[in-house]
Amino acid sequence: MSWQEYLDTHQDRFEQELLDFVRIPSVSARPEHMRDVERAARWVADRLAAAGIENAEILPTTGHPAVYGDWLHAGTDKPSVLIYGHFDVQPAEPLDLWTSPPFDPEIRDGRLWGRGASDDKGGMFIPILAAEALMAETGRLPVNVKFLFEGQEEIGSPDMPPVIAAQRNRLACDMIFSADGLQWSAQEAQIVMGLKGLMGVEITVDGAATDQHSGLHGGGINNPLMALSQLLASMKDAQTGRITIDGFYDDVIDLSDEDRAEIARVPFDEAGYLAETGAPASFGEEGYSVRERLWARPTLEINGLTGGYQGAGTKTVLPARASAKITCRLVADQDPERIAALIAAHVEAHLPPGVTAQVDRLAGDADPFLVPRGHNATRAAEEVLAETYGAAPYITRVGGSIPIMTLFLRELGVHGVMFGFSVGDENLHAPDEFFRLENFRRGQTAYCRLLEKLGG
Amino acid sequence: MSWQEYLDTHQDRFEQELLDFVRIPSVSARPEHMRDVERAARWVADRLAAAGIENAEILPTTGHPAVYGDWLHAGTDKPSVLIYGHFDVQPAEPLDLWTSPPFDPEIRDGRLWGRGASDDKGGMFIPILAAEALMAETGRLPVNVKFLFEGQEEIGSPDMPPVIAAQRNRLACDMIFSADGLQWSAQEAQIVMGLKGLMGVEITVDGAATDQHSGLHGGGINNPLMALSQLLASMKDAQTGRITIDGFYDDVIDLSDEDRAEIARVPFDEAGYLAETGAPASFGEEGYSVRERLWARPTLEINGLTGGYQGAGTKTVLPARASAKITCRLVADQDPERIAALIAAHVEAHLPPGVTAQVDRLAGDADPFLVPRGHNATRAAEEVLAETYGAAPYITRVGGSIPIMTLFLRELGVHGVMFGFSVGDENLHAPDEFFRLENFRRGQTAYCRLLEKLGG
Ligand SMILES: [Zn+2]
Ligand SMILES: [Zn+2]
Repeated sequence: MSWQEYLDTHQDRFEQELLDFVRIPSVSARPEHMRDVERAARWVADRLAAAGIENAEILPTTGHPAVYGDWLHAGTDKPSVLIYGHFDVQPAEPLDLWTSPPFDPEIRDGRLWGRGASDDKGGMFIPILAAEALMAETGRLPVNVKFLFEGQEEIGSPDMPPVIAAQRNRLACDMIFSADGLQWSAQEAQIVMGLKGLMGVEITVDGAATDQHSGLHGGGINNPLMALSQLLASMKDAQTGRITIDGFYDDVIDLSDEDRAEIARVPFDEAGYLAETGAPASFGEEGYSVRERLWARPTLEINGLTGGYQGAGTKTVLPARASAKITCRLVADQDPERIAALIAAHVEAHLPPGVTAQVDRLAGDADPFLVPRGHNATRAAEEVLAETYGAAPYITRVGGSIPIMTLFLRELGVHGVMFGFSVGDENLHAPDEFFRLENFRRGQTAYCRLLEKLGG
Repeated sequence: MSWQEYLDTHQDRFEQELLDFVRIPSVSARPEHMRDVERAARWVADRLAAAGIENAEILPTTGHPAVYGDWLHAGTDKPSVLIYGHFDVQPAEPLDLWTSPPFDPEIRDGRLWGRGASDDKGGMFIPILAAEALMAETGRLPVNVKFLFEGQEEIGSPDMPPVIAAQRNRLACDMIFSADGLQWSAQEAQIVMGLKGLMGVEITVDGAATDQHSGLHGGGINNPLMALSQLLASMKDAQTGRITIDGFYDDVIDLSDEDRAEIARVPFDEAGYLAETGAPASFGEEGYSVRERLWARPTLEINGLTGGYQGAGTKTVLPARASAKITCRLVADQDPERIAALIAAHVEAHLPPGVTAQVDRLAGDADPFLVPRGHNATRAAEEVLAETYGAAPYITRVGGSIPIMTLFLRELGVHGVMFGFSVGDENLHAPDEFFRLENFRRGQTAYCRLLEKLGG
């Protein structure tokens, strides 16, 4: 029986198994579900073994566990492929907004409804089933495969960095595919080539020792809120939207004509975008399209600013202190540490008279991530998606960061490829999460094709 | 008996009477002291009558009462002089910081200690005693005198404007002296020639309809906090401290060489000023001394600014809204309405792309106040102070506003002269308020001399 026949024959069983998997309320954010996350880990390890994967085992961490399994008999001339996903889920609250209970999933209208159905239990189950089907056909896999599934993605993977560092040899691989990813739409595929990095600072400006009366001291001493506004304004050109911090763009990899053509090919409805955000107009760095700015240009945003009197009406205070939180979204090859140093230097150079300023780093650094053009795994994924969806995938980027991808790059030296089959409209972190069973099946076929292609 | 002999002879009684007056806890800010404010009004009306003042009566308002009295038999060739003060006091809390109880006053070390001793019961009692002494000597006063004392100065005189407007004819006068005022120090006199006005606005900048994810939307739409910072920064030159709003300085009366010389004559200890405020350096409009800026140049201060995430750590939000409260301290002849309009026009002209802005007026307008050089009442006051203190008074201004002075100017058309004998170090709104009995006596002499000078 071909792997495709095997998949077709067993689809009912697979759906029942996914229902079982979703029934486990493995909510990583809630301490009362700690045992459920463990149960889900056990379920995954057992299911890997049932699919024919060897060495399936739970990897303890200082928090929720991970699961590892491998099949390494394809030969040394075949690549080693690491497949990643996560079995923890978001909290289900508010419960009363669910049509059917989040942890008592059901199938309606060709969709499987329940918390985690799409993110990422349905997604991570797909490559396991692909491996099972390939093994059922040939008794072996076309490449060496390693599976790593974690139980803490939805809380930011706090305990994963040391585990991945410690298991560096065991996880060593030629390619990484993440089964925790989105396609462009239900019928259109994408390949995500870039993720932005992240860097945060807080700027505090001090003037007088305590708040002063604006009548008695206005004109005598500087106002930290004005000085901070002037500092912040000096960081970005109000008309061109260009960041004016010396050296900020130095390490940015410019968009090539090819990059720009790929981005331009992706549909973008600016009116729809504005309707979605409610902003009166789009705005950003001059010389780039909205999409280019969202995906491929670094940004500097003030996330919060506070100082002085915040209540109703007026209070004629000359405040003693003002502070602003800033995060920059970075693109390859910007370095969070270097950008923080540039901001600190800018603040020092542009500090208005009569105040002092301090720049503190905020937690949450992430390196930017850009898959090099012509990357082997990406090319294979592109071809498979084109076959599976009947059209070339869009080449896209993401304005956010995905810490695990950066972690893999740093620890294993491999750019991961997002190869998941969820869609952004599937209420991933909201009530009535669902997964399209059509894409559940399509994903299984795609993973079989991908592994075959990589092996042949 | 000369009025000076009368004053000397009766000083013990006057001190005992002031102790009685201070014993009435006429705290206008506390509803439970409403009857005490009324009692104080009664005490004042009775005391006016006892001094020989006619028509002494309580003027009801919609809040705490005022007291009026007059003596108008000097003849139509003599000026009419309105003397102002207030019999309400600040709250006394925190009570445990008082050496002797605030409303059980006592005399120690030549000072009378108690709430209101200096501000303004001691102050407002002085001209009543001067009138009594003059009447005792001659049976008449050298000028026509009207007294107006209020019971709500410490809560901003909310009910006084309609009363003064309604009594415009009765209060009509050629000169006004306020017995609620400070001398430069215990041994140095001053004449306050200018008060700043006040104008407030709140600027609200809106971008997206709700807070957005800075990774998903940074670069796509503008950030209201950045746009607001840019707007605010565009209002003042960071290096010169000059306000860059078109037309802002148009109506400012420039400092003459004489004005500047008068201000330069007033001692100013910049190191002491910085130590008092805790600011690292002084700062303000280029081309003016600190004192000139504090007293005679308009200012624009951000009193409060808020937007986005205000908690600990970081939140990668692209906020939907930011707002800032601004007040300007104005100098003659700036007009609050015109300045508000200039700010609104500036915001419209400088609004960065991709956001909307709204400018709302805040309550609390006050007109600036500048006594014209050579003003008759001021010249008389200067001469009397020079005689009484043995040296010419400093010619000063105040950065704050005193609403009653502006109100008198608007309703009665007369620039008031501050002619009070308190000193700024007398804990006016703090525990252990006191009044120097030396200045209590000096003030009585000064008011007698003043009225004589104005009459002759
Ligand atoms: Zn996920
Ligand atoms: Zn007062």
